Amino acid sequence: MTAASRRILVLHGPNLNLLGTREPGVYGQTTLEGINGALSELATELGVELRTLQSNSEGALVDAIQGALADCRAILINPAAYTHTSVAIRDAIAATALPTVEVHLSNVHAREAFRSHSYIAPVAIGQICGFGPDSYLLGLRALVGRLEK
Amino acid sequence: MTAASRRILVLHGPNLNLLGTREPGVYGQTTLEGINGALSELATELGVELRTLQSNSEGALVDAIQGALADCRAILINPAAYTHTSVAIRDAIAATALPTVEVHLSNVHAREAFRSHSYIAPVAIGQICGFGPDSYLLGLRALVGRLEK
Amino acid sequence: MTAASRRILVLHGPNLNLLGTREPGVYGQTTLEGINGALSELATELGVELRTLQSNSEGALVDAIQGALADCRAILINPAAYTHTSVAIRDAIAATALPTVEVHLSNVHAREAFRSHSYIAPVAIGQICGFGPDSYLLGLRALVGRLEK
Amino acid sequence: MTAASRRILVLHGPNLNLLGTREPGVYGQTTLEGINGALSELATELGVELRTLQSNSEGALVDAIQGALADCRAILINPAAYTHTSVAIRDAIAATALPTVEVHLSNVHAREAFRSHSYIAPVAIGQICGFGPDSYLLGLRALVGRLEK
Amino acid sequence: MTAASRRILVLHGPNLNLLGTREPGVYGQTTLEGINGALSELATELGVELRTLQSNSEGALVDAIQGALADCRAILINPAAYTHTSVAIRDAIAATALPTVEVHLSNVHAREAFRSHSYIAPVAIGQICGFGPDSYLLGLRALVGRLEK
Amino acid sequence: MTAASRRILVLHGPNLNLLGTREPGVYGQTTLEGINGALSELATELGVELRTLQSNSEGALVDAIQGALADCRAILINPAAYTHTSVAIRDAIAATALPTVEVHLSNVHAREAFRSHSYIAPVAIGQICGFGPDSYLLGLRALVGRLEK
Amino acid sequence: MTAASRRILVLHGPNLNLLGTREPGVYGQTTLEGINGALSELATELGVELRTLQSNSEGALVDAIQGALADCRAILINPAAYTHTSVAIRDAIAATALPTVEVHLSNVHAREAFRSHSYIAPVAIGQICGFGPDSYLLGLRALVGRLEK
Amino acid sequence: MTAASRRILVLHGPNLNLLGTREPGVYGQTTLEGINGALSELATELGVELRTLQSNSEGALVDAIQGALADCRAILINPAAYTHTSVAIRDAIAATALPTVEVHLSNVHAREAFRSHSYIAPVAIGQICGFGPDSYLLGLRALVGRLEK
Amino acid sequence: MTAASRRILVLHGPNLNLLGTREPGVYGQTTLEGINGALSELATELGVELRTLQSNSEGALVDAIQGALADCRAILINPAAYTHTSVAIRDAIAATALPTVEVHLSNVHAREAFRSHSYIAPVAIGQICGFGPDSYLLGLRALVGRLEK
Amino acid sequence: MTAASRRILVLHGPNLNLLGTREPGVYGQTTLEGINGALSELATELGVELRTLQSNSEGALVDAIQGALADCRAILINPAAYTHTSVAIRDAIAATALPTVEVHLSNVHAREAFRSHSYIAPVAIGQICGFGPDSYLLGLRALVGRLEK
Amino acid sequence: MTAASRRILVLHGPNLNLLGTREPGVYGQTTLEGINGALSELATELGVELRTLQSNSEGALVDAIQGALADCRAILINPAAYTHTSVAIRDAIAATALPTVEVHLSNVHAREAFRSHSYIAPVAIGQICGFGPDSYLLGLRALVGRLEK
Amino acid sequence: MTAASRRILVLHGPNLNLLGTREPGVYGQTTLEGINGALSELATELGVELRTLQSNSEGALVDAIQGALADCRAILINPAAYTHTSVAIRDAIAATALPTVEVHLSNVHAREAFRSHSYIAPVAIGQICGFGPDSYLLGLRALVGRLEK
Repeated sequence: MTAASRRILVLHGPNLNLLGTREPGVYGQTTLEGINGALSELATELGVELRTLQSNSEGALVDAIQGALADCRAILINPAAYTHTSVAIRDAIAATALPTVEVHLSNVHAREAFRSHSYIAPVAIGQICGFGPDSYLLGLRALVGRLEK
Repeated sequence: MTAASRRILVLHGPNLNLLGTREPGVYGQTTLEGINGALSELATELGVELRTLQSNSEGALVDAIQGALADCRAILINPAAYTHTSVAIRDAIAATALPTVEVHLSNVHAREAFRSHSYIAPVAIGQICGFGPDSYLLGLRALVGRLEK
Repeated sequence: MTAASRRILVLHGPNLNLLGTREPGVYGQTTLEGINGALSELATELGVELRTLQSNSEGALVDAIQGALADCRAILINPAAYTHTSVAIRDAIAATALPTVEVHLSNVHAREAFRSHSYIAPVAIGQICGFGPDSYLLGLRALVGRLEK
Repeated sequence: MTAASRRILVLHGPNLNLLGTREPGVYGQTTLEGINGALSELATELGVELRTLQSNSEGALVDAIQGALADCRAILINPAAYTHTSVAIRDAIAATALPTVEVHLSNVHAREAFRSHSYIAPVAIGQICGFGPDSYLLGLRALVGRLEK
Repeated sequence: MTAASRRILVLHGPNLNLLGTREPGVYGQTTLEGINGALSELATELGVELRTLQSNSEGALVDAIQGALADCRAILINPAAYTHTSVAIRDAIAATALPTVEVHLSNVHAREAFRSHSYIAPVAIGQICGFGPDSYLLGLRALVGRLEK
Repeated sequence: MTAASRRILVLHGPNLNLLGTREPGVYGQTTLEGINGALSELATELGVELRTLQSNSEGALVDAIQGALADCRAILINPAAYTHTSVAIRDAIAATALPTVEVHLSNVHAREAFRSHSYIAPVAIGQICGFGPDSYLLGLRALVGRLEK
Repeated sequence: MTAASRRILVLHGPNLNLLGTREPGVYGQTTLEGINGALSELATELGVELRTLQSNSEGALVDAIQGALADCRAILINPAAYTHTSVAIRDAIAATALPTVEVHLSNVHAREAFRSHSYIAPVAIGQICGFGPDSYLLGLRALVGRLEK
Repeated sequence: MTAASRRILVLHGPNLNLLGTREPGVYGQTTLEGINGALSELATELGVELRTLQSNSEGALVDAIQGALADCRAILINPAAYTHTSVAIRDAIAATALPTVEVHLSNVHAREAFRSHSYIAPVAIGQICGFGPDSYLLGLRALVGRLEK
Repeated sequence: MTAASRRILVLHGPNLNLLGTREPGVYGQTTLEGINGALSELATELGVELRTLQSNSEGALVDAIQGALADCRAILINPAAYTHTSVAIRDAIAATALPTVEVHLSNVHAREAFRSHSYIAPVAIGQICGFGPDSYLLGLRALVGRLEK
Repeated sequence: MTAASRRILVLHGPNLNLLGTREPGVYGQTTLEGINGALSELATELGVELRTLQSNSEGALVDAIQGALADCRAILINPAAYTHTSVAIRDAIAATALPTVEVHLSNVHAREAFRSHSYIAPVAIGQICGFGPDSYLLGLRALVGRLEK
Repeated sequence: MTAASRRILVLHGPNLNLLGTREPGVYGQTTLEGINGALSELATELGVELRTLQSNSEGALVDAIQGALADCRAILINPAAYTHTSVAIRDAIAATALPTVEVHLSNVHAREAFRSHSYIAPVAIGQICGFGPDSYLLGLRALVGRLEK
Repeated sequence: MTAASRRILVLHGPNLNLLGTREPGVYGQTTLEGINGALSELATELGVELRTLQSNSEGALVDAIQGALADCRAILINPAAYTHTSVAIRDAIAATALPTVEVHLSNVHAREAFRSHSYIAPVAIGQICGFGPDSYLLGLRALVGRLEK
């Protein structure tokens, strides 16, 4: 397996850059850096390489997904607010056809009704939500597990 | 009260840069510059400082809201079209927890049905709509009134 | 401008007479008398005259709106519970064609779903909600601003 | 047939007292007095007696319907705004079981969507709408026609 | 007024040819011939001429409405079942722009829920329902009343 | 316990004054006086005092609920038709915060669909329906049971 | 039992004349003639007589149903596309009150959502779907079984 | 009255066996045994006999309802979670035609939206909710009151 | 064809054991034993063997469907109340992939609205409803007809 | 390519025969003959042959679509009002499997809400709306473009 | 930590006992024994003990959840079909208040619309779907991760 | 006509830059460059000038639409995913009031339900969908045809 064939794009959607600095009661005290660090450790353990990006812009997230076509093999994404409103991100994932796992820090089914609908989930392999930063780690395991089959 | 503690971010959403140049029948003849000027005058009168930004990009508006955490105390926002489609802006306001007032030039309840729903309103202090440029001035008064309590 | 042409009817809908005496956690400690007093002061400042009425009866509110045709120039109304259920008040406002501003103490968009729909708003100039007693003061300013144009 | 057995209660709902004085473009120039006069003439022709009442209050309309039990044989009602919101008037008509005809000046099916639903119609004999003051005259004919069978 | 300018097309929709022969409990014992006879008498009294047609075919009803353009001045229609399903009849009435009155024998608001919606009513002058054969007679009066204005 | 602290307001909504005189098949033969009499007997047995009021007016019912603040400790209400349409009564009960029990003579869940929704129930302690006049007696027991805890 | 009392009208709705010549993958290879032949054989076995008609016209199907009043005792109908859109056919069946069985070649519940609603079924004895040409044979048995009771 | 004619089946639906041991904040501290004990006392006072059963299984509850046909005269049921999902229990009650009263500990109208719909209520005599263990006692009184009429 | 390859599982859902003993007006006077007897006779005629089971338990019905994998070739099921609520039975049928026919005694499309939706039908070959006990016999014929193709 | 293989059926739905003679403000001044003439010219240019038909009857349109199987290669259809109500036309197009293009003179998405749903579009190649008579010419180009691939 | 405090109940809902033997295209070739084996290995690695149960019965699953109160510390559940229909399982989880993780083999958001709603998710910590047998392993990791915090 | 008055802005929405490189089965093998080339040729033929832009960003598309005010006369847009989610693009088109044609490569009415709703169409002249790259060419013809009128 080449390097490119082991590289996974990790995408963090809007407002996730604020993690750990605001609303610790809701989102916990881990920062995005903390999550990326934990992901890096696990990636090393699982033998994959990560490229991480956070953006508040729907278009930038679409650009990044398209960019993954060149040298990534899969996508781990927390679409955050765009989960519920972005057909563009859905179409980007479907168009690239890269295996994608959707993760959420909070349990989207236990919040406002509009958060239980995801435009992304139907084009992803699967969805993991509710485990805080662990959602990312579980998602990375799930994705690598799929790549190895 | 320090300068920062008196600074208010004024955000104008998509297409508001066209104000006064197009569709005067609907939106009136006041330009965005005119509105900003009137806001400045009132700000001086009320003893607050304003920072204003207009953007057509949802992501840029989210960035600006997050940026307000550093040195603003409150937000006055006309989310325009994003009122009805942006969970990202809603989440940004909720995450920063800055007191926010939502204003609209037109009476959103007297237009297409989809315009009567706001993703922003539930996380704002309140909403003011229908008074043309005066909506902004009333919104600034409302916000300063709240800050003073 | 004659006296009549500067007189504004201020209507308080059902249960607003209890303000300040019950549920201060929700509606604050200001009484209706307090609100009327503050409105009077502002009216003097703005050069208008007020006539105020509170009623728990939909029919009485309709009567009052009709009565305003004789000697008032505009209406400031907090329809309270009737906001969501009264076509009769809507029709009365539409029939008199007096400029009307709708205000609410609480942020109706942050409460039960049924409170986000207003029968009144589509026939009003605009709507102001969420600022407690200040909603009335802002509404009076908005109305006078409109009358002066 | 006794006098009572030929007496019909004519009920005019909220805002109909403004007829002819406001919004002639929508509701025409006939006043409520004009309608009552025309109804009286037709009543004489048809050999029935009328008792007429207009009220802006839902409760007063319910009282009047109940009162008809004593000495009226049927009801001609334009429930106006209460058509769409009053279960109380519906229940009053059902409870008295007096033959009732519902009329509307305007074509309720060609206006806002909420006006096409009537709480009253299912308990009335029938409904007539769209013919301006003639709706009342047609309704009286319909009612007398039914009484004579 | 010329003959043509006093001629009214009377259209009976599907299944109305069975009137009086089936389900007298629901639709009464009057036959379609009986209704046409009563309409003729009233037409003479009102000084108008009638042309009557019954058809079970949506297309034939559309043809007839179009045909009325040549030599009729108005339309009295009981669209029966097509009331609830025919955009074609609605469009024909709108296209010819002939004054049209919609009538129903039964009270459509007191039957299955789907019968309370009419595609025709929004393009008609008004609607009369629930008075059995009298619905037609009232409808003719209403139509002639309108033509005379 | 003082007298006031044992006084319960019993409210009868619209059309309940007709009980026993009309539609005995639906509502039984007991009159409102009969119900009030039975309630009085039970009140004596339970050691509470009753004040009873029937009104067809939504506003009068709101007034009465507010009035209970002065000298009643709880409310037993059959809102009848206003159950399904009155936010004003709901808000009055919520504002007074008096313990309230909602009762209905008929089983509202076995009638028209719109009757299964109650604006009142979410702010009441509980709801009892379907037992005819016994619904009131059960409701009084339920209320006194609650007061005694 | 007379001949007429044993005659059953078999109605095939729109597009069924194409059976067996188009889309065999969906509708099988049996032609409409094949179905009619099989029905004839079964009719002889069951001692009934058939009259068959196929039409693409809603009005013609209504005509045929009405015509059955004269000399048929029951109806076997595959309303095809009109199942989901024709109130006229529903009303014709209800008006004639002839025992009617509704059949479908395909399983309407396993196709587009709009095909699971039938305007016809509530006025039929029952519905049979999903068995290809056998749906007709089962329907004929069901109908004759009912007639013999 | 024989013993059987005075026997009432008391059914407790799923999770009610946990009462008093879990979530006392929501459901109170009374155990199911406590409720059964209080019911027994009241039964003795009212001269009826009880048979009680708790089950977490929908099928077992249906079996028990059917079993009541043999030697019970009525049913007092708290269907708990099955209230909102079980057509089978509804059909069992309708099929046995035993007088049935539905009770709930909590006020189902003040919880999640799905809890305000009951499949059981339309086939019961009535429904009592919100009074904790007293709901059962009130329900038993209501049921015995009905049996005595 | 071996014995197993000719064995059909006949499943009767909840409350069908009461057939013939209760509500003869609705469900007829035939007992479940009567239906099973008639099915046996027809099975012999058609050369198939039957295994019959009635259960009020959703889980037991799922167990039985799974059990059919071992030695049955097809399923004839009247899911009764579970038709409208059981995804588990649907999934069991889909998982076993045994040809399945769904039958109902009553015409589910002519009863309460919720009965017109079936979770089972989309995974069955077809559905037969409305013919009383004959629905089963027709269903068995339909199933055997399919097996023979 | 033979003549038949170049022949295209052009179908005009209900009321299109009135084009140019009525409502020029809405539908323009071009007559149907004008449209057919322009189509003929373009057909010659594109090397295809046209057969045109206008009908107000749903059944006749279905007949014509079926008839195209014999000697046409494709269909250009403006279903007009039947766009929104005809499953029969949809099924006819699906059954013939002839390439079909749907056109509309007006922009159906800018009119009444019911006009934005098309039963036809999902079985057509594509849809063109809003360009007046040009919609037909664009549709013919689109269809010929597809046939040539 | 005692043994009990490390014991986790693993619940498999209806039809999961068929895993690996049917529909491998959809659910893969792993059997339930295979999944339980893999879970056991992971449990040993993570230092927890498992108790596993599969049932097709909603009631038995409720019983098992309640039983976990005695000697388990958490629940890992694949509710399968009951995800979408069982309020009883939801209430059992809420009542025991044991930390619960919901897993699904398939991506429920990419299947029939009714599968995207879960009654269980709002009372669980989180949900994992779409990863086949790995969903269970990820779920166990997630649960143990939560217990260790 | 000046150059500016013949210049048309061609906007390609999100993910269209991937055309021809991914999912050829769905979107064909033509690249965006191929489409732009074909448009250029047609533009020359029609005597217009094109400016083309592709962006994945909603805000950038709004900017471009506003920019067209300076030196373009019309807009040809394929909003792709933003068709279904962008009120901002809708408002930009409405505000500039430039004639706009909306095109789609695929038949949006034959895909997921959410794709049949367009926020853009009501403010465009018309919509063309389903013809692959030809949709653009047809759209350009349509637009130029409109400009020439």
